[in-house]
Amino acid sequence: MKTYPNEAIEEEEVPAPADGVKVRWLITEETGAPNFAMRQFTVTPGGSTPQHTHPWEHEAYILEGSGTIQGGEEVEEFEAGAVVYVPPDEPHQFKNTGDGELKFLCMIPHQKK
Amino acid sequence: MKTYPNEAIEEEEVPAPADGVKVRWLITEETGAPNFAMRQFTVTPGGSTPQHTHPWEHEAYILEGSGTIQGGEEVEEFEAGAVVYVPPDEPHQFKNTGDGELKFLCMIPHQKK
Repeated sequence: MKTYPNEAIEEEEVPAPADGVKVRWLITEETGAPNFAMRQFTVTPGGSTPQHTHPWEHEAYILEGSGTIQGGEEVEEFEAGAVVYVPPDEPHQFKNTGDGELKFLCMIPHQKK
Repeated sequence: MKTYPNEAIEEEEVPAPADGVKVRWLITEETGAPNFAMRQFTVTPGGSTPQHTHPWEHEAYILEGSGTIQGGEEVEEFEAGAVVYVPPDEPHQFKNTGDGELKFLCMIPHQKK
């Protein structure tokens, strides 16, 4: 087993069209995880992840802040302590609509090549 | 997509030999998730999950409180913001060694029957 503070993992800037988004890959295949990865995202106030879609799901948990998740026409609000589930192949975009940082975990299955 | 507060999911008592442990199954196959489940555990001060082992991994994130993870002879401390990875087939036990509640997320792959 392994335990470490999330801050022990280097935070990387997510390139545009992401706006004000950083990511830490907390658990990956390199950690030894056989099935899925744990990432932690931080979004600055007003920032957002790109509207995009892909054939894998997202399982997210809001750690700090508040924002919205948009899927197609539908927009839903969330705050710290909320769960967000995005099914495969559904367009989605996270936005920070609060005054402080938005921080959330987002787990995805490994992309098998 | 779906978003809901974690408190919207009913909290269940985890039976003995767990000691002072409750669980919310936040995302499951019933939610539509194809690969893995998200659970949130709450452990009372002094409480613990049973020392046990199984052929699937744990990916955990400590939300509140502090405690230890024991794997075989090895014991490591953690606090809020820590990541815990337990590989398949490794014995492990979470303990709350703090004064307040220990709350953590723990993701596991679905157990295919």
